[in-house]
Amino acid sequence: MMDVDFLRSVESAYRAVQDEQIAGLRAFDAEVNLTRDAWDRPGGGGGDTRILVDGAIIEKGGLNFSAVEGEVNAALAQQLKTKATRFAATGVSSVLHPCNPHVPIIHMNVRYFTLDDGTWWFGGGIDLTPHYVIPGEARAFHEELQAICDRHAVADYPAFKAWADRYFYSPHRGESRGVGGIFFDHMGREGDVDREAALAFCVDLASQYAAIYRRRAEPFTHQFVDAEDVAWQGLRRGRYVEFNLVHDRGTRFGLVSGGRTESILMSLPPRADWTYDHQPPEGSRQAETLAWLRKGTEGVDWLSA
Amino acid sequence: MMDVDFLRSVESAYRAVQDEQIAGLRAFDAEVNLTRDAWDRPGGGGGDTRILVDGAIIEKGGLNFSAVEGEVNAALAQQLKTKATRFAATGVSSVLHPCNPHVPIIHMNVRYFTLDDGTWWFGGGIDLTPHYVIPGEARAFHEELQAICDRHAVADYPAFKAWADRYFYSPHRGESRGVGGIFFDHMGREGDVDREAALAFCVDLASQYAAIYRRRAEPFTHQFVDAEDVAWQGLRRGRYVEFNLVHDRGTRFGLVSGGRTESILMSLPPRADWTYDHQPPEGSRQAETLAWLRKGTEGVDWLSA
Repeated sequence: MMDVDFLRSVESAYRAVQDEQIAGLRAFDAEVNLTRDAWDRPGGGGGDTRILVDGAIIEKGGLNFSAVEGEVNAALAQQLKTKATRFAATGVSSVLHPCNPHVPIIHMNVRYFTLDDGTWWFGGGIDLTPHYVIPGEARAFHEELQAICDRHAVADYPAFKAWADRYFYSPHRGESRGVGGIFFDHMGREGDVDREAALAFCVDLASQYAAIYRRRAEPFTHQFVDAEDVAWQGLRRGRYVEFNLVHDRGTRFGLVSGGRTESILMSLPPRADWTYDHQPPEGSRQAETLAWLRKGTEGVDWLSA
Repeated sequence: MMDVDFLRSVESAYRAVQDEQIAGLRAFDAEVNLTRDAWDRPGGGGGDTRILVDGAIIEKGGLNFSAVEGEVNAALAQQLKTKATRFAATGVSSVLHPCNPHVPIIHMNVRYFTLDDGTWWFGGGIDLTPHYVIPGEARAFHEELQAICDRHAVADYPAFKAWADRYFYSPHRGESRGVGGIFFDHMGREGDVDREAALAFCVDLASQYAAIYRRRAEPFTHQFVDAEDVAWQGLRRGRYVEFNLVHDRGTRFGLVSGGRTESILMSLPPRADWTYDHQPPEGSRQAETLAWLRKGTEGVDWLSA
């Protein structure tokens, strides 16, 4: 049996978090244009996609809430390794692409999944993709994530940090997408996990999103930008597109399983560039960034970097 | 046993075709900058990637020749459904992204594959992706492909046209990539196919590539371009990126099996744009193009359109 009361309480909490995030981002970027697209899912449920464009800080971003339910089809059964017949899922996800190349891209997701065999689990994470990697900024970002994890018994920063390093890796480029962050999945599917505690962690994490981003973005929003910075941002955005479309399991599963394409591809940048075999000059800031991103699937221990 | 003499003769023919294509494209676009990147494959063989950029007509394009060989690893064995242990493959592939949005994108590929169990096959095709679909242009393009097929007993235009319609379809968008063309694979793997005749067809097709493109491109290279055209080109290029990274079997297999990333992603445009849920105004040329592209996996019978 699916616990529908608990499901609705997670949906409510996630809806509230989305509103909080929107308010936080608007307080930071008062010029951003916000549009809202509420949608229904043919098989059951729906969502609320909020799009942010042409702000002073955010060039293109989105915050998507969804609460969907329906039959477990063959693709989903295989993905989830389950024999259950009905599922419900709710989540909030967001990606923000900034105007200024010195400001990082950020991504956040929290989700809850439950089946009619009574199983349930939480997943989520936050990760940062700077166009230029600055170790002190990566360290400060990871310290914040560690502090959030440290106040929740269900959260394990070292394990979730390592999970993000493995997940956000592009084998075809031999590069990490960015400086990682935390990623977790299947929390509560096995073992003895308190679901209220798991929900509290997800809500805490998601509710910090706007503030975490603001602290990483604000020092750079007015930094001088030259043509080289803009060109580099275009190429790094190209890598972001490649990761999301080639490797990201959530994106790929959503697209091939009939998810809502526009809400899924909300994560793509406004514009991306490709140049054949681009090699930044040795010793340049671009080359330094690539060196940080090419540490392999173990990433970098940013807390000590 | 692999017939190495025949393999070398295919490689030579394909190399010669690549040179012919380059000469044809330079005759058409004298301003294009041509660079050459000869590369070795760690497991055996290598290639010759020619990149065309910043021409009067071609903004970014490439023609890649490769002749590789090596062990059949697990991924390849699964892809090819074979128990053979060694393979050799040679091919020429090309994509051209034009400057002017009124000029279509074109893609061409011919390939030859052989295994040490003695099996061999040819594959390839040419397809066209106009930013604005013009039925008369699509018809003229298909008439040329039909004429090439008609002079080769091994080629079956209706079957290859239908194959392209199925192959170049993006389910997540419910759109065809463009107006299709021809696509074929495994020619000679089963049944009684004369390999010299199959090679002759591939060479004939590939050697027509530059001329076919020129006839579709030339009338539009100086057509007036407004901001709306440029914006639309960016969005259609975004769809091209999506098709190649999410669905194209050649691209995906190459990236996950350790192919040469830069040569594979040579197909991506110089720049692509994404706008959330873009809907062209009813009755606009953009909306008309989408209507042509949304005919499903059976595409359009352009010869009668």
